[in-house]
Amino acid sequence: MKDEMQEFSERMAQRADQVDMALAKLLDARLRGDEIARPDTLLAAMRHGVLNGGKRLRPFLLLETAELLGGDQEAALRVAAATECLHCYSLIHDDLPAMDDDSLRRGLPTVHVAFDEATAILAGDALLTMAFEIIAAPQTELAAGLKSELVLALAQASGLGGMAGGQALDLQAEKYPPDEAGIITLQSMKTGALIRFACEAGAILSGSNPTDRECMKRFGEAVGLAFQLADDLLDVTSDSQSMGKATGKDTGRGKGTLVALHGADWARTQLSGLVSEASSLLSPYGERARILLDAAQFVANRKH
Amino acid sequence: MKDEMQEFSERMAQRADQVDMALAKLLDARLRGDEIARPDTLLAAMRHGVLNGGKRLRPFLLLETAELLGGDQEAALRVAAATECLHCYSLIHDDLPAMDDDSLRRGLPTVHVAFDEATAILAGDALLTMAFEIIAAPQTELAAGLKSELVLALAQASGLGGMAGGQALDLQAEKYPPDEAGIITLQSMKTGALIRFACEAGAILSGSNPTDRECMKRFGEAVGLAFQLADDLLDVTSDSQSMGKATGKDTGRGKGTLVALHGADWARTQLSGLVSEASSLLSPYGERARILLDAAQFVANRKH
Repeated sequence: MKDEMQEFSERMAQRADQVDMALAKLLDARLRGDEIARPDTLLAAMRHGVLNGGKRLRPFLLLETAELLGGDQEAALRVAAATECLHCYSLIHDDLPAMDDDSLRRGLPTVHVAFDEATAILAGDALLTMAFEIIAAPQTELAAGLKSELVLALAQASGLGGMAGGQALDLQAEKYPPDEAGIITLQSMKTGALIRFACEAGAILSGSNPTDRECMKRFGEAVGLAFQLADDLLDVTSDSQSMGKATGKDTGRGKGTLVALHGADWARTQLSGLVSEASSLLSPYGERARILLDAAQFVANRKH
Repeated sequence: MKDEMQEFSERMAQRADQVDMALAKLLDARLRGDEIARPDTLLAAMRHGVLNGGKRLRPFLLLETAELLGGDQEAALRVAAATECLHCYSLIHDDLPAMDDDSLRRGLPTVHVAFDEATAILAGDALLTMAFEIIAAPQTELAAGLKSELVLALAQASGLGGMAGGQALDLQAEKYPPDEAGIITLQSMKTGALIRFACEAGAILSGSNPTDRECMKRFGEAVGLAFQLADDLLDVTSDSQSMGKATGKDTGRGKGTLVALHGADWARTQLSGLVSEASSLLSPYGERARILLDAAQFVANRKH
């Protein structure tokens, strides 16, 4: 088991390097298509918010589901980079003074601290926009029908009815603590939807049949739930040094989490259940899907 | 001439009604596709930022170019609504305290005043995301290849190399006044790119040949330049009541404009030149393009 997890860690690091290289290239100064100029400061703020040594979990899930289902790896890498641009935009905006007001992210100053608030807002806006540009660009060699499906799924996962809506619910939760159903909705939107998208996108870009696509979507849902539960557990059991960001904030602000409602032991049992669910969903794919199961375990057991 | 402009105004008002109805429908509470929930407050903030009696200039240009070039009007209406969502997101974010800090927009409190800053940031994010969703959705009945082209062109017009980049340059311009070339770049990005997109999009969704597409793009460029020049003229000659927003701010902040550099008479001559250019570009289409020429005149001569 230890060897398997070590192998997994190495693979995740390799994938992260691939994704970092793709992101660095997308965020260079060359103009694309009808762009008029790439202003230096804004570009630097975008790079600060993206090229910061993140684990690249969502790209990893996307690349591995695409590999499992026979998708083109070059195209998958671009869609993975797009997904990470979108994820990083959400972190930049969530960290703003008007939102969670965080000054530290992955051990570095947040974008509005390193630059200024206006630049951070615009860097987020431009990264969100770039995510869609990357998918639609001719360099992403996919059938146009698949690109449209990816744009639609990404927009629904990340907008009003997904991630942005989840952040809005999260802000309200400080004043009006939600009940259990409300917490689940909030978390499915805020963090679950984009993780689910990453897995489903691997299937979409591979041109998979509806069964495989639905299966990867449900796998992504399980991983998303596990991610949030593990995060809530860490928030009560970890310290800010190993997280590279402030911890204990959710409890301090009176935000309800499932861990706060049901306790840490319940959460650990739920996490095992989610890993089992992931395992059942992946069983039709046999040994080839082992890396995705490892990913689910990694998410459920992560210590930072 | 007076009758012609009256006919034009009526047509613009009819188009605005069409667009408002489409926008109200897109911003209702029904869930689309994989959306998990549409949170009330965020949706209300988005509606506040969009359904506010705007002139809908960009949708108008898009619908009229599509009509000229034989595009499907139902599809054009959806792409027009998407373009307006994107425009309104940019207004919401530009009005934020960290940006232009405006409390009045079209005679109403801005979104961050009517709601709060965090909600305004998220409403902008969700509207930007929704623009791409609307284009990619199956209800927009266009060939997938055209949708990808629209997504790409919209993203390039509005992101780092377009509108968002232009706003970043505009913020820098307060500290480091740009030279004439810098002002032109800033304005082409901040306001020109999306107006150009609106005209080009009418051609894209009509499946037009490269000549027509290029022609509409250049027409959009001329209208965009005219729009900004007219805006700068109004900023020095108008009052806040007829504009429905604060005026004289650019000069007050020391922002360079071409009107400040060259004077109002020079600007009026330029505006005539741009209308002539629009007229030449449209001449191959004859009388059928009259409404687009009227639009260029309307933009160049607008009093508010």
